[in-house]
Amino acid sequence: MDGAPARVAVLGVGLIGGSIGLAARRRLGAEVVGWGHRAATVERAVELGALDRAAPSAAEACAGADLVFCAAPVAALPGLVAEALAAVGPDAAVTDAGSTKRELVAAFGSDERFIGGHPLAGAETAGVENAREDLFDGARWYLTPTDRTSGLLYDRLQRAVAGLGARPQAIDAAAHDQMMATVSHLPHVLANALAAEAAGGVGGAAGGTGAPGEGGAGASAAAGDGAERLPEVGPSFRDATRVAGSNPAIWQDIFATNREAVADTVESVARRLEAAAALIRSGDREAIRAWHAAAGEDRRRLLDADLPGGPLQELRISLPNRPGTIAELALALGEAGVNIEDMALHPAADNHSGAVSLWVAGAEQADRAAARVRELGHTVAAQGAGD
Amino acid sequence: MDGAPARVAVLGVGLIGGSIGLAARRRLGAEVVGWGHRAATVERAVELGALDRAAPSAAEACAGADLVFCAAPVAALPGLVAEALAAVGPDAAVTDAGSTKRELVAAFGSDERFIGGHPLAGAETAGVENAREDLFDGARWYLTPTDRTSGLLYDRLQRAVAGLGARPQAIDAAAHDQMMATVSHLPHVLANALAAEAAGGVGGAAGGTGAPGEGGAGASAAAGDGAERLPEVGPSFRDATRVAGSNPAIWQDIFATNREAVADTVESVARRLEAAAALIRSGDREAIRAWHAAAGEDRRRLLDADLPGGPLQELRISLPNRPGTIAELALALGEAGVNIEDMALHPAADNHSGAVSLWVAGAEQADRAAARVRELGHTVAAQGAGD
Repeated sequence: MDGAPARVAVLGVGLIGGSIGLAARRRLGAEVVGWGHRAATVERAVELGALDRAAPSAAEACAGADLVFCAAPVAALPGLVAEALAAVGPDAAVTDAGSTKRELVAAFGSDERFIGGHPLAGAETAGVENAREDLFDGARWYLTPTDRTSGLLYDRLQRAVAGLGARPQAIDAAAHDQMMATVSHLPHVLANALAAEAAGGVGGAAGGTGAPGEGGAGASAAAGDGAERLPEVGPSFRDATRVAGSNPAIWQDIFATNREAVADTVESVARRLEAAAALIRSGDREAIRAWHAAAGEDRRRLLDADLPGGPLQELRISLPNRPGTIAELALALGEAGVNIEDMALHPAADNHSGAVSLWVAGAEQADRAAARVRELGHTVAAQGAGD
Repeated sequence: MDGAPARVAVLGVGLIGGSIGLAARRRLGAEVVGWGHRAATVERAVELGALDRAAPSAAEACAGADLVFCAAPVAALPGLVAEALAAVGPDAAVTDAGSTKRELVAAFGSDERFIGGHPLAGAETAGVENAREDLFDGARWYLTPTDRTSGLLYDRLQRAVAGLGARPQAIDAAAHDQMMATVSHLPHVLANALAAEAAGGVGGAAGGTGAPGEGGAGASAAAGDGAERLPEVGPSFRDATRVAGSNPAIWQDIFATNREAVADTVESVARRLEAAAALIRSGDREAIRAWHAAAGEDRRRLLDADLPGGPLQELRISLPNRPGTIAELALALGEAGVNIEDMALHPAADNHSGAVSLWVAGAEQADRAAARVRELGHTVAAQGAGD
């Protein structure tokens, strides 16, 4: 039941490490010493106020620390945690901020001083320039203690995490990885598969379409035009593939360190798709409708969990897509006290016109937003349609 | 080689039919007569200037028309097209605006007056209130002539479509449906599968996680808390499930009328996922990295096709998530002459802070945008990371 840590070490000073440093200095009143494998980055972190000082090595950063945060990419964590545990005394806690937990906890969870961690904020590579004291405000921060973990050190760590602004929550390391496999890692795999299918499938589609009619005026010219075989893609394709191929260096490590859980959930989705294909092939409209509607309910339930202000409401607004229109809209909603939780643009192909979907929390904000949008002269519908 | 149609009939006056009416009157100088199954909607279309007058039946709307647009939901099209073909004379063209083409063309393509159509703009249900003269400006408008199609009527139709502002392109009906299956219909199926997996899989994950450690302070309480079994979801999950369950009534018809092509591409993705699962399970980092990077290339190639101004560039900007911030940003970029092609918000869990990704066309606009963002005091990175 001791108080805040007097001395914090941060190993790896990117977005996460830098933000931990800023918040630890200003909110916990701790002295923060940092180390990173690029000296220039560490010096920049000092300039930005994220560190009191830079140490010449990880071990020297850890010497005398009560609490060590390892905030490096996943692949670097085993080495860093081992160095930290070797460098600190018996009364110091060592944690990390990696996206996967099972392998690291399997390696170090027998040491009562190591407690795995994962803040759901930012990304490992976005750089110390983006570090902010309030990065973790309100964010879930998972901690993965084991039955060997020191209660005293766990208490110190979870108080410190709360002091940084986050909402700490203990979770079993394997359960964490399984959950992340589905809600974070799986979407990346699906995006990849869809992008590959569209890139591979579209070329194939033009060549292999059974025995269609020959086409009238203009049809054969179009079919022979390679550039036109890449169709304009709709907003559903943009959204569904947004993360395809993002940061291969980070993702190879996440996939590698959570391979069994990710592979299991990917296979589960493959089986769901086989079932969906059979359902669609059957042409049973009522069953298709029920399956489709149930998926919409599933999504709403997941997104509504924990959301302050009530379930998300979608407003779909038609508007000219010239520079400044979105700004005008967002400004007006801001003045009306409406906060936009999520936004998706649906530009027309010419980018001169389009629609925007806004999600706001709760019916009251939605009504206020719709009224304000109509005052601006735009039309607004309660729900968008497919593309 | 006759000129623009003197008399246009529009059957179904929602967003699409209403916009066709507005553009046909103002840009083609045609007289536009409309019919829809709800009289109040048709009256509203007349008030909005989308129609010269309302007809009491589909047949009466078609009488004397040179060109008939059937702009109703997919399931209503066979009946409407049949009525139109029975009502018009031998020199009139009949087309539609449905999302699937093969079944309709199979039914009516032997009539030289019917040419299937599909404008990539708007949605069937968004309502006549949202109709705009410029809805189709620059948009691809697929036309599906057959070897029976009248060359004269095809020429009239494609000139009219171009006159409405769109870019007509002839395509075989089956090829159209196969292409749409992949880039439009498939993403909806994937979104559904992911939402169902997360809703079903998360509950299962908390209960069935092998033999994990018991957890330290706080762990068992968290595991027993049902509400907390729904995790906060990241932006990748939001994006990937955006369209899950949207408009079941529309989608049951699209899936039903394109069932073979959709089922085929869904099964193809299921096989891709089985292969991805095996790759991930292997733990082969280099192969995983190559697969992941290739998917990113696939997406960029698809999105960059036809885009004016150069390949899309992503700017990831950190900023406080208070009302007005996005507005200020968009306004500043608008003043700098930068057009935002696509946007994704990444709020932190507390909605007090976050990041926004903007996509702009070409390096020149990207550089200009980044400079302006920095002038506002925000930090900007050239690429975001995973969540």
